[in-house]
Amino acid sequence: MLPVAVDAMGADRGPAEIVAGARQAATELGIPVVLVGQPDALGDTGGLEVLAASEVVDMHDDPAGAVRRKRDSSVVKAAEAVRDGRASAMVSAGNTGAAMASALLRMGRIKGVQRPAIATTLPVPGSPVPTILLDSGANSECSAAWLAQFGLMGAVYASARFGVAEPRVGLVSIGEEASKGTALVKEAHALLARPGWFDGAGGRFIGNVEGRDALTDAVDVMVTDGFTGNVILKTLEGGVKTLVNAIVAAMNSSEEAKQASEALVPALLPLYIEMDPDTYGGAMLLGVDGVCIISHGKSSARAIVNAIKLAADMVAADLVGRLRDAVGQALPAD
Amino acid sequence: MLPVAVDAMGADRGPAEIVAGARQAATELGIPVVLVGQPDALGDTGGLEVLAASEVVDMHDDPAGAVRRKRDSSVVKAAEAVRDGRASAMVSAGNTGAAMASALLRMGRIKGVQRPAIATTLPVPGSPVPTILLDSGANSECSAAWLAQFGLMGAVYASARFGVAEPRVGLVSIGEEASKGTALVKEAHALLARPGWFDGAGGRFIGNVEGRDALTDAVDVMVTDGFTGNVILKTLEGGVKTLVNAIVAAMNSSEEAKQASEALVPALLPLYIEMDPDTYGGAMLLGVDGVCIISHGKSSARAIVNAIKLAADMVAADLVGRLRDAVGQALPAD
Repeated sequence: MLPVAVDAMGADRGPAEIVAGARQAATELGIPVVLVGQPDALGDTGGLEVLAASEVVDMHDDPAGAVRRKRDSSVVKAAEAVRDGRASAMVSAGNTGAAMASALLRMGRIKGVQRPAIATTLPVPGSPVPTILLDSGANSECSAAWLAQFGLMGAVYASARFGVAEPRVGLVSIGEEASKGTALVKEAHALLARPGWFDGAGGRFIGNVEGRDALTDAVDVMVTDGFTGNVILKTLEGGVKTLVNAIVAAMNSSEEAKQASEALVPALLPLYIEMDPDTYGGAMLLGVDGVCIISHGKSSARAIVNAIKLAADMVAADLVGRLRDAVGQALPAD
Repeated sequence: MLPVAVDAMGADRGPAEIVAGARQAATELGIPVVLVGQPDALGDTGGLEVLAASEVVDMHDDPAGAVRRKRDSSVVKAAEAVRDGRASAMVSAGNTGAAMASALLRMGRIKGVQRPAIATTLPVPGSPVPTILLDSGANSECSAAWLAQFGLMGAVYASARFGVAEPRVGLVSIGEEASKGTALVKEAHALLARPGWFDGAGGRFIGNVEGRDALTDAVDVMVTDGFTGNVILKTLEGGVKTLVNAIVAAMNSSEEAKQASEALVPALLPLYIEMDPDTYGGAMLLGVDGVCIISHGKSSARAIVNAIKLAADMVAADLVGRLRDAVGQALPAD
């Protein structure tokens, strides 16, 4: 397999954390990796191949402008490595918008895809299969046809990544009935419900779902526009964090509570790991002509290992080819 | 004070639960109450006044149609009692859409209000002041001018209900910068940021906020369209429920964990009460010409007591008069 191109720059914890994850993926999982970044900034790469890039897009850069101006930045070079057949996939934990723009501009879209979408995984406590949410923020305004295509791409991804046989695809609305929601949602509902729409993708449409279904196993793929999807993601991140902090504070509120809590740690640890965003490694930009993983800016080395593994798995599963087939076989999107 | 009209019909737990809450509010808090419903269905009313209504709007009725057809339903009669000066406020735990439509059609809008909005309270662990979210579902599609007005109404409500001196009003978007979000959000941002916009309402605009701020004290009033607001509300409800269930399951996963958990109950109880939706009693329909509290369909007697107390408090605080002044003093909304 061609190496996975890992953008080593621009993440919150600095290049050392990314390099540590890349080294671990190479030595422990045997996945070939090429680091992309400023060679002087990378520290000990443990012999990993390095693709030199002189510039860095940072978190505050305007994504589209930065990708145009900083042609020798690590994130742009990582996308070019995939385009040029020097890498099998890219992983970036830097500026999300820049990773998206680089992938879109350098790799291009899969034929037939109207807009790429960011697919994130939401943990479902007690279930090995998380819920996939897309679009989580690539397109803040969407057409109904794009949403219908997100449904196809999400179904292919759920099946390629988690082995779901016939992924249940739901449309985010504010009530179960087809009559609920905005004009956009009603129109997308009609497109997703067309007989045969999912034939090439292997999923099935289960109608509208609501925000409350996100962390449950009621649905495999939640389709929505990038504004609503990003709001759902941030609301869950914030809500879980607030609640966990409040519980931890209560657990430390007295000596007696502290002792009781220590006895509970073994029981709570599996849930903690399930809910930890690092467990899933990153989001997938679906619809570009190559595998592109966008990791959280705060990613730990463990998150990077998981992102590289995900990238390699999706290359091996030929995710891009399966997306191309599903989109190509589908009815006209509008 | 005129009595609070309590719609006794159409809630999930049946009239007995509502009547129990109404009796408790009357006897323990001394708040005058008139029950509205089918006299035979109410059971022992403990001597509370009853306003007879022969019809019931149930949870599955189409709201607008039901309000037109069922003119003698309890929810319509409750709204009429406020309009006719026989009651000071209405409380309903029945069909939300029907309560909204009844209030809007029978009480009308406050002069100058373009659209009423549902304001819900989101608990902030450790803080006595929750976050107010509006619109939580009254208008799935909104104009920027409506959102700007929701900001005013939310500020007045935060101040009338929680005594917040200068409520911080944030606009829900997917990034802090004014350039982030949909065209609607950018336009609303410009309207909310106009100098003098909040002069009559007493709040101040702090710019964009994100879903992650909902359960924190970073903001007092979160403004958004009814689709996004409802998605935030349902996502939080579902997320908190899923997480709490998973924690409870972990706490019961072994004999040792069970014992440790029992010792933790006193420490966790205050948080549990804070997070319990019944604590806040209900949502407020802001912008109609009367006090209208919309409680959750699953409301317990405790939730109804809190809703009736909230109604009485908002009548005493002259919420409607303060909203009228704030909206009347504001610049043109668009």
